[in-house]
This record gives sequence, C-alpha cells and structure tokens, in this order.
Amino acid sequence: MQLTPAQIAEFEEQGYLFLPRLFSAKEMDILNAEVPRLFAQQRPEVWREKGTDAPRTAFYVQTWSEIFATLARHPRLVEPGTQLLGSDKLYMHQFKINAKAAFDGAVWQWHQDYATWYEDDDMPQPRAMNIALFLAEANEFNGPLMFIPKSHRLGRLEAGHDVTTTSYPLWTIDHATITRLVEEGGIVAPKGPSGSALLFHGNLVHASGSNLTPWSRWIVYLSLNRCDNAIRRFKRPTWIANQDFTPIDMLPDDCLVQQARRKQAVA
Amino acid sequence: MQLTPAQIAEFEEQGYLFLPRLFSAKEMDILNAEVPRLFAQQRPEVWREKGTDAPRTAFYVQTWSEIFATLARHPRLVEPGTQLLGSDKLYMHQFKINAKAAFDGAVWQWHQDYATWYEDDDMPQPRAMNIALFLAEANEFNGPLMFIPKSHRLGRLEAGHDVTTTSYPLWTIDHATITRLVEEGGIVAPKGPSGSALLFHGNLVHASGSNLTPWSRWIVYLSLNRCDNAIRRFKRPTWIANQDFTPIDMLPDDCLVQQARRKQAVA
Repeated sequence: MQLTPAQIAEFEEQGYLFLPRLFSAKEMDILNAEVPRLFAQQRPEVWREKGTDAPRTAFYVQTWSEIFATLARHPRLVEPGTQLLGSDKLYMHQFKINAKAAFDGAVWQWHQDYATWYEDDDMPQPRAMNIALFLAEANEFNGPLMFIPKSHRLGRLEAGHDVTTTSYPLWTIDHATITRLVEEGGIVAPKGPSGSALLFHGNLVHASGSNLTPWSRWIVYLSLNRCDNAIRRFKRPTWIANQDFTPIDMLPDDCLVQQARRKQAVA
Repeated sequence: MQLTPAQIAEFEEQGYLFLPRLFSAKEMDILNAEVPRLFAQQRPEVWREKGTDAPRTAFYVQTWSEIFATLARHPRLVEPGTQLLGSDKLYMHQFKINAKAAFDGAVWQWHQDYATWYEDDDMPQPRAMNIALFLAEANEFNGPLMFIPKSHRLGRLEAGHDVTTTSYPLWTIDHATITRLVEEGGIVAPKGPSGSALLFHGNLVHASGSNLTPWSRWIVYLSLNRCDNAIRRFKRPTWIANQDFTPIDMLPDDCLVQQARRKQAVA
C-alpha cells in the first residue's frame, strides 16, 4: 500500500486524504461482527455518552480484541502513515472506536487533536496523525466528520479545555477563530461506505455533529506517532495516551481474512 | 402563486414539496435585516437554547414585527396552503422563526407536528401543515430539516412527551418506530439558498440535528390550519397555539418590496 506523489501532495495541501473502499466488504464484516460485543463491555476503556448508556468511545481496543489487534498492524493503514509522517518507526499513540451511536451519538466540538496531544501528553511536535477507518457508512445524516480544509497549515491554535459539552474532555477552539477559518477554507465532510479510510493531519481542525438517525456511524481511529516524537507527560492513562512506544510491526495485506480463517478452522 | 397538479401530487405522495428560490434575494434582505433585532429581545415569545443565551425560537412574530406581519399574509406562502389543505379559509395556528443558531443550535427530535397540535391543542384533524421559508441557506452542515418521506401516510403515530432533551417540550416518536419508518422511506434533507420554501404535511415525521457551523440556519414557519379545523383546547398561550381563528387575508405578491419602499419614503 503506497500513496502516490499526487496523494501525498493533496494531503499536504488540504490536510486530509480520503480513500473510499480501501477495505473489502468481507474484511469489514469480520471487523463489524466483533463491535457490538466490545461496546457491550463494562470496563474503564468504554465511555458512554453523557446521560445515556449509548457507547461513545472504546479505547485501546487493540489490547483486548484479537481482530482489532490485527487491524492495528494493517499495512493498508500503517504504511500510508509512514509515508506521510516520513518515518518507518511509528507507534500507536491512541487506538479507539468511536460509536456515534444511532439516535444518541453526540457532538464533538471543533478541535485539533494535536492540541490535546500537546497540552495533556506533551508530545513534542505535530508529527502524528489520524487514520480513520469507516466501520459503518458515513453519510450526510449520521454525524460525519467535518474538516476545515488547510487549517492544519496554521499550526497549533489556542484552545480552551471543554469539560462540559460531552463526556470526553477536549481542547476546543473558540467561535471567532472557527468563523475566520471557515471563511477561508469552508467545510467538507467526506462520506462513503464502510471500508473507506480518511487520513488527516494532527493539526487539521475538525468536529462532528449529532446522530439522530437509526444508523450508527462507527469509526476506528489509529492515531500514529513517530517513535522519535514520543510523549513526555503521563497524566492520562496508557489506554488513552499510550506509554508503549514500540514501533508497529506490520502484518501481510491479507491478515484480516487469514485470521478469520484460522479462527474458523479452530472452531 | 398556484401549485401545478404535478406538484400537488408530489406533496400528497411524499408528504413535502420543495420550492427553491421562491423569494428573491431583495425580499430576503428585507426580512433578514430585521431578524437580529427580534432574537435580541427579551420577551416570553423568544426562547433560548438550554444552557446558553443562543436563540432557539421566536414565536408569534407576526404580532410584533411589521415586516413579518406582511410575510404572514404573503400569497406565495399562503396560497399553496389553501390548495394543499383544500380550503380558502385558513388561519395561522403558529408563526415562528427557528434560529438553529451558529455553533449552539441544538437538535429537534423526531416528531410529527400534528401530534403536538392534537395532544396539546385538541386540533380535530390533521388538516394543517407547515410552510417553511429559509431565511438563511440550509446546507448539509448546519442542521437542515430531515424528513422521512411518505411517513405522513401512516396518520398520527404514538408519541411520548419529551421535556428533557431541549428547552421546548415536544411529542416525540420512539426509536423502534423511527427505525422501521426509515427502513421503508429513507431520510431526505432538502437543501437550498435563502428564499427557498419547504411545504410539509402535519403528519410528516421530521427532525433536525445540531448546528456546529458558523452559519445560523434561520427558518420562518407558518403553521396553517383550516378555519373549520380550529383547536378546542387552550392550555398553551395564544402566542404558541393561536386562539385567533380569523381567516388570513392575503396581500399582493409584491407586498414585501412595497412595504420596504413605504418605510424608506417615511424615513
């Protein structure tokens, strides 16, 4: 899995790159079959939406689900990260599934992920990024990710710590700044079927709206960081801000299907 | 302003009809110039979003704004109502501006307006409807109205009184029912520029999401009812559920521009 020079240039210009149908329906079925069981677990890594039992986020899933452990080493996700971050040695700073659950999925206010990685985790440089894999279709109705294109070029913006809007504390950006950024860059919301991937810069300003539809909008996020850019403050638990900086060892491209076959053979 | 037989058939089939750019930019400028002054007023008719000062709804505006009094008698809005409701004698059951304010605009859960008109106001039949005029552009990002097409054909659905989600109490429909309706009819969100109009049946199931963008999504709603279908319970104030059943006397088609001219001449 190699991005073309044109794709790399687009990422650098816009701050994101959308790869529709990067994974097959078969691969997505393997992953999705596991998700309800994960969200159903009562454990510290599974956060709920404020005031409801609906799942918001399942953290560190690569350590408590075999199939997601495999996904976390998938070359179709990790290799583009090595290209865009310019290093073969990447580690998983954060790995999570965001549910944006049917009917109850709540907003994520406008923010840059690097603001949190810097403020909370003391990550030296914005040499980290997100790879989002759509487990479910993202459409115009179910709270798709919204980006302000090119906003990553401004570097880290001033942010305030929002601990009230949702159950998850977040360093968010004020309205005047967002208004100015949107006047310049507009808003985009890449939409596509399950299996699509969305790669975006750690400083790209993004948000997502509520989900009132019957369609949960599950997304897996790999937050990849260069091993030479590891965090230096450890106030968040390791399952939110990973303290294990071991470089990711990629698996073969057919790893998901092979693992499902092995599991079936044993059963 | 006469709807064609094809437009009437489409309304009856789908439960709604979208008329892009029904009003000119000049007419919309006249209306929009007034809106900030209206939302800024501290009066019982202006409701705020829960937990913020952002306006949610300004009710009964036709009684405290001259230009909106004119709009409430506009033939491009009222005449289609007479055609679709099959009566020349209509009165204004409710007239409001919904703000869906930039950054703070909150959700409206799935509901039928007739459920509220029946439960709260004892309106005999669903022979009432909404005419929504977009003051601002409605786009995919700023919480556009979402409809479940054809859901009006099922009549009034069972509803529960939601007094917690937002500042405005609403008779809302349960998740299982919405899931079934969406499986059958899908979801649509008509989008368009300021000046577009959206006509929909009192039993059409609708909702709208949050607005995280810098773009307020102001909409005027005329809820027209047949005079022979007037409400029979008066527990809501008249500025929410009008107790004045006088038939609307339509003005000429150029009434907005003429009124602005008269005002300018006086000034």
